[in-house]
Amino acid sequence: MSLNEVYSYIDRNSERFVKELVELVRKPSVAATGEGIEECAEAVKELMEKSGLEVKVIPEKDGNPVIYGEIKSERSSKTLLFYDHYDVQPPDPIEEWESPPFSGEIRNGKIYGRGVSDNKGNLVSRLKAVEAFLKVAGEVPASIKFVVEGEEEIGSPHLAPVIREYADLFSADACIWEFGGINRQGNPCLYLGLKGVLSVELRAKGAKRDVHSANAPLIPNPAWRLVWALSTIKNEKDEILIGGFYENVEEPSAEEIECLKKIPFEEEETKKELGLEQFLNGLTGLEALKALLFNPTCTINGIHSGYGGAGSKTVLPCKAFAKLDFRLVPRQMPDEILDKIRGHLKKRGFGDIEVIRYGSTEPARTPINHPFVRLVASAAERIYGKKAIIYPTSAGSGPMHLFRNWLKMPVVSAGCSYPEARGHAPNENLPINLFIKGVKFMATLINDFGSDLSEKL
Amino acid sequence: MSLNEVYSYIDRNSERFVKELVELVRKPSVAATGEGIEECAEAVKELMEKSGLEVKVIPEKDGNPVIYGEIKSERSSKTLLFYDHYDVQPPDPIEEWESPPFSGEIRNGKIYGRGVSDNKGNLVSRLKAVEAFLKVAGEVPASIKFVVEGEEEIGSPHLAPVIREYADLFSADACIWEFGGINRQGNPCLYLGLKGVLSVELRAKGAKRDVHSANAPLIPNPAWRLVWALSTIKNEKDEILIGGFYENVEEPSAEEIECLKKIPFEEEETKKELGLEQFLNGLTGLEALKALLFNPTCTINGIHSGYGGAGSKTVLPCKAFAKLDFRLVPRQMPDEILDKIRGHLKKRGFGDIEVIRYGSTEPARTPINHPFVRLVASAAERIYGKKAIIYPTSAGSGPMHLFRNWLKMPVVSAGCSYPEARGHAPNENLPINLFIKGVKFMATLINDFGSDLSEKL
Repeated sequence: MSLNEVYSYIDRNSERFVKELVELVRKPSVAATGEGIEECAEAVKELMEKSGLEVKVIPEKDGNPVIYGEIKSERSSKTLLFYDHYDVQPPDPIEEWESPPFSGEIRNGKIYGRGVSDNKGNLVSRLKAVEAFLKVAGEVPASIKFVVEGEEEIGSPHLAPVIREYADLFSADACIWEFGGINRQGNPCLYLGLKGVLSVELRAKGAKRDVHSANAPLIPNPAWRLVWALSTIKNEKDEILIGGFYENVEEPSAEEIECLKKIPFEEEETKKELGLEQFLNGLTGLEALKALLFNPTCTINGIHSGYGGAGSKTVLPCKAFAKLDFRLVPRQMPDEILDKIRGHLKKRGFGDIEVIRYGSTEPARTPINHPFVRLVASAAERIYGKKAIIYPTSAGSGPMHLFRNWLKMPVVSAGCSYPEARGHAPNENLPINLFIKGVKFMATLINDFGSDLSEKL
Repeated sequence: MSLNEVYSYIDRNSERFVKELVELVRKPSVAATGEGIEECAEAVKELMEKSGLEVKVIPEKDGNPVIYGEIKSERSSKTLLFYDHYDVQPPDPIEEWESPPFSGEIRNGKIYGRGVSDNKGNLVSRLKAVEAFLKVAGEVPASIKFVVEGEEEIGSPHLAPVIREYADLFSADACIWEFGGINRQGNPCLYLGLKGVLSVELRAKGAKRDVHSANAPLIPNPAWRLVWALSTIKNEKDEILIGGFYENVEEPSAEEIECLKKIPFEEEETKKELGLEQFLNGLTGLEALKALLFNPTCTINGIHSGYGGAGSKTVLPCKAFAKLDFRLVPRQMPDEILDKIRGHLKKRGFGDIEVIRYGSTEPARTPINHPFVRLVASAAERIYGKKAIIYPTSAGSGPMHLFRNWLKMPVVSAGCSYPEARGHAPNENLPINLFIKGVKFMATLINDFGSDLSEKL
């Protein structure tokens, strides 16, 4: 079997592949609301079976099912695992869509629909690569596993116990993560890590009920307490003041800095699009990119207390809350950070402020010099005809640590998307040619992985 | 004419007086929504005419009409002005009323209804005192003026220009303010001042739109900027840090402290009712009361930015606002304080935060040793048979400065209410006996004012 025969099969069947993707896009699967989840999970199961995988539906406790699929290779001892998700973001604001979000309409060579780029296009491209090998050669160059969850867009709250329980079943030599694509210059981009995240809510309480603000000299104001507490957590220079927060955080290595220098950073475009004269602290160029990818953060996602209507109201509120997320970098563990937040507040006299924990994920990163990174880059460069751009990490978060830190496999995120895909926004889309190229990219990757190229893994 | 004849007239007509008050209560007049304002203003005009006053309806520019009434005395050169309002607070939450808020139902000797205590009961008690003199003696012991506005409950936003325009018409030797009553021990309480207030909104802006919180290292967060700005305005000891804020603020005089010592302060009851272990900064006793009445304040009435729903959302908001009120004491002028707030923010590096001005009133206070205070106290003590309690000022705010500072008259607030009246709350009420006593109190006051007792004014 030559890889060219596989490419040829992909080309011959591209119309059907598009049809299968469109059909999947037509199944709503909004994790935030539960809309269509069950039906879509069933469709994913069928599509995986149709693509030649042996499929097992793993129920999550209190969550949406994980669809697991595998096919063993006779000629390779290596196993490659794909992590994907079938759930999508809510389609709001619906009125801004040019075609219904779950129609999968094709216009000007692009498929439009919620989830087509994030993550159904990637999922289908990977399944169709497997199918191509099976149809052309009757076997796969490496053993393949798929873990396809249904709660990625809401923070994968129930995935960890599944990973623990099925650690043996999911074991593999390497993992391809769910996202990725080419940049504006056409270079394929690979992402070697994700930040961790810890989401919390701080709650301050005052009197039993709101009182008239004339009583301000006597009645504690939880809005003030929350403001004061928050102001001890981060200063105006954006430095996080929680004792030990930066403990163990390492500066990027020389190698990582070299990677950063090769990343085209659309600084002016971003500022213009967001109406900003400058980035935070006047950061520019390499320093800005370095901060974006390597700095841990503390963000107020929301703060609310008291009156919010028109004009004024002389009220002294009885409660206040702020929602915060902390983005974490390697060696910052959510449990430890939570302890440090609580300890900090107590130490600074804010022991009365309750800290509620929401979701968290650990940071995860695969070293730049890992052979698997070179293998993925090589496959990408052959398909896209341009140098692969390596992001030592993405600025985002996700459950990558379950595979990287717990199951101990190298993880690279690479896929078939592009900068205009509008993931999470109205008119999400995926060009058909990029989708088909993505199938070939994944086929190449699987082939390389099963061949001598992966010997060093 | 003896005052006893007037009291006798009041007793004989008490049933009708109650009926007239109930009828007025039945006219909704919610300034916040405009409900029933016009009809109630007309009813007030008729009631004032029926009580013997010459009435003039003064339209407010963009506001509810001010009803002005007067009657000249032949035998006294002194003029006493009553400030009242016919508008009421919204009746919400309606479901907590035992009878409909605008029914004026009488149960167990009490009239129930929104506005019966604040301020329709006081208004009617004053009008009926005037009527009593006219019916019994055909004249009033002193010239009487009424300024009855319709926007007190929304901060009297349009009253100032009316006061300026009609300064001559409204001129008087002294003013009785709208509120007051007996305390739990039955002592009549007189209030000699109000704090000023300045309401503002601070607005911080970030990017053009909300962004994903993964971008936190680069994108300014207006919620953080607002938190930092606020934390420079007041510290955890409740000290306001705006340069010059406390300039010219005077400590209470020895005489005022003596007054404070005579005020029964229901400290433990208040804490218990509000579920507080202690007041702000552990204040107790005289110190707490002194702070309540004499300290200027800065209150966050509301603060809002970003996500406020259940759980967490990884969003970085693009705007944030906080509503604040500053309560001001004599010699703190709203215009100057506003300049100081803006200057402070600029100086502290928060010139990007917009300061929007809402309503304001100046502080106002009549000296304890003013003869008019003694005159009102004397009348009250004869009617209620208990020592009058003098509050050098109330902790609240209102347009008193228009009469005290602009029209230069001494102002005392004294009325017919009581601690269980539930003003601004469901089941607002006024006992009939207190209402009738209030008519007599006002008659006594008018009589004293026109007699030798007021010579020293």
